[in-house]
Amino acid sequence: MAESWVNLAERIGSDLHLELSGAGGRRAVLIRALRDAVREGRLAPGTRLPPYRSLAADLGIARNTAADAYAELVAEGWLTARQGSGTRVADRAAPPARTRVPKRAPTRPAKPAPPAYDLRQGQPDAASFPRTAWLAAARRALNSAPNEAFGPGDPQGRVELRRALAGYLGRARGVRTDPERIVVCSGFAHALRLLFGSGGGGVLSGPSPSSRPSPSSRPSPSSRHRSSKGYPLAVESYGLGFHRSILATAGVRTVPLGLDEKGARVEELTDSQHIGGVLLTPAHQFPTGGPLHPARRAAVIDWARTRDALVLEDDYDGEFRYDREPVGAVQGLDPEHVVYMGSVSKSLSPGVRIGWLVLPEHLIDGVLAAKGEREAWVSVIDQLTLADLIDSGHYDRHIRRMRQRYRHRRDQLVAALATHAPHISPTGVAAGLHAVLRLPPGTEQSTAKAAAWQGLALEGLADFRHPEATMPAPDGLVVGYSTPPEHAYGAALEALCRALPPG
Amino acid sequence: MAESWVNLAERIGSDLHLELSGAGGRRAVLIRALRDAVREGRLAPGTRLPPYRSLAADLGIARNTAADAYAELVAEGWLTARQGSGTRVADRAAPPARTRVPKRAPTRPAKPAPPAYDLRQGQPDAASFPRTAWLAAARRALNSAPNEAFGPGDPQGRVELRRALAGYLGRARGVRTDPERIVVCSGFAHALRLLFGSGGGGVLSGPSPSSRPSPSSRPSPSSRHRSSKGYPLAVESYGLGFHRSILATAGVRTVPLGLDEKGARVEELTDSQHIGGVLLTPAHQFPTGGPLHPARRAAVIDWARTRDALVLEDDYDGEFRYDREPVGAVQGLDPEHVVYMGSVSKSLSPGVRIGWLVLPEHLIDGVLAAKGEREAWVSVIDQLTLADLIDSGHYDRHIRRMRQRYRHRRDQLVAALATHAPHISPTGVAAGLHAVLRLPPGTEQSTAKAAAWQGLALEGLADFRHPEATMPAPDGLVVGYSTPPEHAYGAALEALCRALPPG
Repeated sequence: MAESWVNLAERIGSDLHLELSGAGGRRAVLIRALRDAVREGRLAPGTRLPPYRSLAADLGIARNTAADAYAELVAEGWLTARQGSGTRVADRAAPPARTRVPKRAPTRPAKPAPPAYDLRQGQPDAASFPRTAWLAAARRALNSAPNEAFGPGDPQGRVELRRALAGYLGRARGVRTDPERIVVCSGFAHALRLLFGSGGGGVLSGPSPSSRPSPSSRPSPSSRHRSSKGYPLAVESYGLGFHRSILATAGVRTVPLGLDEKGARVEELTDSQHIGGVLLTPAHQFPTGGPLHPARRAAVIDWARTRDALVLEDDYDGEFRYDREPVGAVQGLDPEHVVYMGSVSKSLSPGVRIGWLVLPEHLIDGVLAAKGEREAWVSVIDQLTLADLIDSGHYDRHIRRMRQRYRHRRDQLVAALATHAPHISPTGVAAGLHAVLRLPPGTEQSTAKAAAWQGLALEGLADFRHPEATMPAPDGLVVGYSTPPEHAYGAALEALCRALPPG
Repeated sequence: MAESWVNLAERIGSDLHLELSGAGGRRAVLIRALRDAVREGRLAPGTRLPPYRSLAADLGIARNTAADAYAELVAEGWLTARQGSGTRVADRAAPPARTRVPKRAPTRPAKPAPPAYDLRQGQPDAASFPRTAWLAAARRALNSAPNEAFGPGDPQGRVELRRALAGYLGRARGVRTDPERIVVCSGFAHALRLLFGSGGGGVLSGPSPSSRPSPSSRPSPSSRHRSSKGYPLAVESYGLGFHRSILATAGVRTVPLGLDEKGARVEELTDSQHIGGVLLTPAHQFPTGGPLHPARRAAVIDWARTRDALVLEDDYDGEFRYDREPVGAVQGLDPEHVVYMGSVSKSLSPGVRIGWLVLPEHLIDGVLAAKGEREAWVSVIDQLTLADLIDSGHYDRHIRRMRQRYRHRRDQLVAALATHAPHISPTGVAAGLHAVLRLPPGTEQSTAKAAAWQGLALEGLADFRHPEATMPAPDGLVVGYSTPPEHAYGAALEALCRALPPG
């Protein structure tokens, strides 16, 4: 916009300065200037504007431009135009003071300052996201994608990604699947919502047992997995409260299973006649850390077959195992009785928002119906990019590199404890991105407080306990070693050692 | 893997050929080969395996490698190891035949073949996605993103995107907002779910009027927008059934408003004392095509202020206006009584999965609570990319280019009708990606059938009608002119003209 235009603008009225600047053509600038003047009250309701011919002459612009600007503002409701009374500022155009755009109310609590040291579990090292490899994969994926990729998507997910996942999961996790059994979602929480809905919409939700004639009687064997619907779900006594609350919101009652050194006590499943399924973290119990014992893997599959129930396998960090090859997925033992769920939230970043379900045949259509007619959730561009990242081998390479990095951090943690707190033994360190430090009885709360005093954020075992759990409640800390950036990890470990109770 | 290894493998047992090929180290290959043999029944349950020392000697590999492979398969439940009885194939490792991974059952209906010509509304030209500009923006965004971008995200959305949107929406759509009033979501349907939840979880859902002592009495003026909660929502008599069904699932009753040449008859809102809000498409009524008349824009804001009710503004294609500058958002008239919603599904691609709400101050915390503690839905990488695309001017440039392209297609449609079906007048052609062709009374169904015979997919007005609408039901076709690829558009228009009823 030429400067001369700005000066001309001041000739419209002695008390009105239009700010005729900014991007766009003359008409757009004039519309914006008049609109702002009305909004801000500089043009009061009822004020009669000069005829568009005069305005055009004043501004040295085409009459059509001025007329169009008036017409647009009339169409938007800022101005009114009536035969005989000309163009005026509309009555309601200046909103009452309370509806002016306020800055966010100060009542909303400010976000807390980040802690000085962060050893909370749950996220990979954000500094290690493979930006270069991701970009290269995005370039290849976008350049080779068919046009239809940018249309409404298939709710099952892009076939390129499902093919890549079927290969990867079979190779790296022992999952038995073809691409047709995979449904792409935005992460584990989305997977749970697709299975259980919220308010009863999911494929596994149904009438509660109390509304049935005989709750403890076995459902007819002809209806597959009838027992999963509307019946309580067994969960591990320790787990993420967030997952329990998704289930609770969906109306699913959860029943805690005990944990011991062999993992979840799946033999407790047989104590109840009406458990419809069990949610487990077999590769690396979350958060206590051990793998599910082979006998229990077999037992839970036997139970699921006998009852025609479902095992829901949360494979949240199965790629990260340090002692030998990763423990394969339970799903491989019986794909028709296990729903396998994973995501890239630990392997790449929670910001990518891609996860997957590997489903028994009979659940696929129900999960797709719950997801919707089109891909309404997961970025198609990111799906294609991840497919290329896997197919090109860069995903495996990234995981190998991160495994080495996390193993090194785990070793540093173990060494620091051996030196500075030899009475505290870390457990669950053979895998994953976190360890559990068992503490002397009664010291968990005070240790967490001492950590907070050090500016160190971490969580205690009690934070993960099912409210109805009956097993013993050991004292312990859940220490995530993947969260801090590389340079801050040493200081975080020192703060941890200072916070631990004396031996 | 060396070829010699494959031959050695056959010496394990006369009836067992292990396929010792594929990627990975010797241990990984051996594990996979044994696992496959068990899975496929070539190693039967109970079979005793050779001691690992013998296996190692047979294969010419380190004893540890063979021992590790056995241990892994025991851990996974494929093998069992007991003192004195050696290593055996586990009993349940070979699942019954019915649980072998089946190919997808043939009962699932095959996806219908795409139509020969597609003039259904709802999606932009997929061939026009700006791949190069998107990739360039992704590169700039990923290279400049702070590390924390790859951690758990803010449920409100990346501040870079909210800043870019606040500028763009103010500039292009007359929306009055700052970045703090914007919440990023995955699209319009997600926005509706955040507002109304499903099963009662949303910020605007609440107890139904019938459960209140006096349903028709006015709620106390001290509780802001109390009237929006749990009360029926007015909608336009024609709209997307998908949106109505999201609302129905959320337990929201919808009440249809009539439509005439000035748009939605918002004066009908005053007939009912207990309407809590109204969902409108003011820029371009969907699907009938006109803008909401200025007097009605003013009237609906006056109504919302008087009742302390909400206007929900669905600005689904407001960027695409052909006669003059886009009609600005109603939100600009009163940001405290309007929820403004938009997305990139029409401007870029529905595959991107990014949308936004611009909220009255008092709804922000509730919507954020409904969305969750972290960014669980929208790819952070895509958010950063879109922010760069807007800030760099490429988003505006793409929209300008597409506006020209769609205007040309609209002109082709109008010209084809003038030549081949002068008795059919297209309406709602001043904006958007679709037009409505009014048909002689009683001919909509037969015309739709004639179109289907031509292999032409399109929708009739009846497909969009609210089931409780009482206004007259004109016959008409909704013709989307953005869907076909450029080369197929002419033939689609010819098919359309052939299907139209004779004059």
